Amino acid sequence: MYIETSKRSLIKGVSWRFVATTTTIIIVYVFFGRLDLAIAAGVLETFAKIFLYFFHERIWQRIKFGRQRIDPFNLWFTGLPLSGKTTLADAVFSELKKSDIPLERIDSKDIRDVIPNVGFEREERHRHLTRVGHLIKTLQNNSVSSIASFVSPYKESRQVINDMTNNYVEVYVKTSLETCKQRDYKGVYQKALSGELKNFTGISDVYDDPESPHIIIDTDTQSIEQATATIVQFVKKHYMP
Amino acid sequence: MYIETSKRSLIKGVSWRFVATTTTIIIVYVFFGRLDLAIAAGVLETFAKIFLYFFHERIWQRIKFGRQRIDPFNLWFTGLPLSGKTTLADAVFSELKKSDIPLERIDSKDIRDVIPNVGFEREERHRHLTRVGHLIKTLQNNSVSSIASFVSPYKESRQVINDMTNNYVEVYVKTSLETCKQRDYKGVYQKALSGELKNFTGISDVYDDPESPHIIIDTDTQSIEQATATIVQFVKKHYMP
Repeated sequence: MYIETSKRSLIKGVSWRFVATTTTIIIVYVFFGRLDLAIAAGVLETFAKIFLYFFHERIWQRIKFGRQRIDPFNLWFTGLPLSGKTTLADAVFSELKKSDIPLERIDSKDIRDVIPNVGFEREERHRHLTRVGHLIKTLQNNSVSSIASFVSPYKESRQVINDMTNNYVEVYVKTSLETCKQRDYKGVYQKALSGELKNFTGISDVYDDPESPHIIIDTDTQSIEQATATIVQFVKKHYMP
Repeated sequence: MYIETSKRSLIKGVSWRFVATTTTIIIVYVFFGRLDLAIAAGVLETFAKIFLYFFHERIWQRIKFGRQRIDPFNLWFTGLPLSGKTTLADAVFSELKKSDIPLERIDSKDIRDVIPNVGFEREERHRHLTRVGHLIKTLQNNSVSSIASFVSPYKESRQVINDMTNNYVEVYVKTSLETCKQRDYKGVYQKALSGELKNFTGISDVYDDPESPHIIIDTDTQSIEQATATIVQFVKKHYMP
């Protein structure tokens, strides 16, 4: 994010006034052939327009038309491990980032890398997500929207996120357990099945299916491009000017 | 934060062109007494300036002069419990907020309210502050500066915050233990002395004095107004355009 210093605005204003006045002088001279009067008209125009521009700006300050408050959203991807949340959320992020709105990508893995040793028991998961909710809320206070991807298996955790944040959009990445198991490129389902990984969602811990998600993506039937387009369209329609 | 929709910019542009052209027509008419030529000059001016304004804007897009990247800072208040960190940080926040920069206030108490049951043992405190560091870093990624007040008694925790964030400014609120004890309006020192509160900084846990803080505030000798002015001046000098 850049800001314009007042020095820059001043010089830019003077530079525009120079171009504008010179144009007027040339036009008047071409029409009437009197350079002295053309210059006098130009000088008068300069002074008149400095004041007029000022009042024009002040009047527009009071006009609300076309002014829109940025209303940050919280796009929340939930689903089984390896259901495709991160891939999809990354694709949506790249697409929405083009619009130049303040936007942050928050992924379960990144947060757990920063704050290691967070457990996977029900209570620990819930506390962890409450912290994530606080992070998103703080970003929203500063007009920043977020795209978050977390397994977030429990109904109560998603409810807390919904309560803490504004414009919560729940995206349920609905991939069958069979498909997730087949995708097991990290070998995590294998470890969960053998008992090496405890409290593993879908195997040794529950996943509460979302009851009324805003968007359901069935990765067994939808391509990533189709799914991305659906989500981007939803966000643009509801939360982007 | 508000944005201007393109509709607003368009109508505003048309409205300004109307004012500007009318002014030119009136000036030319007063000078030369020919309304037809005055209007012709006005119409020509309108078309000429639409293109000139466009090129003027494009040329300025390439000029870097006076353009400044927002460089978010992290103002970090450390000191004993009841040393006056929160009061001082609040005062500095109110003052800097006037400048209309993106700014977030983060207080130990608010964070502990959101995420309760964080312990006060050395390791828990350190993990807690790492999470706060992550919050500040994420805000900074989005051009938001922060004013944080935490006891943050350990050297290693402050070092982590320093490493994680940009433009770390350490403010050591140096109040003698005696003064803090006397201020004990919450009765926390009393509880710490009686052993009811464990791991209480200054009584039953260490406070590593900051080795090279950017600013030292001695609340025994400085008024809150003086201290606020000192800190605000430092931030304005180093981090504000």
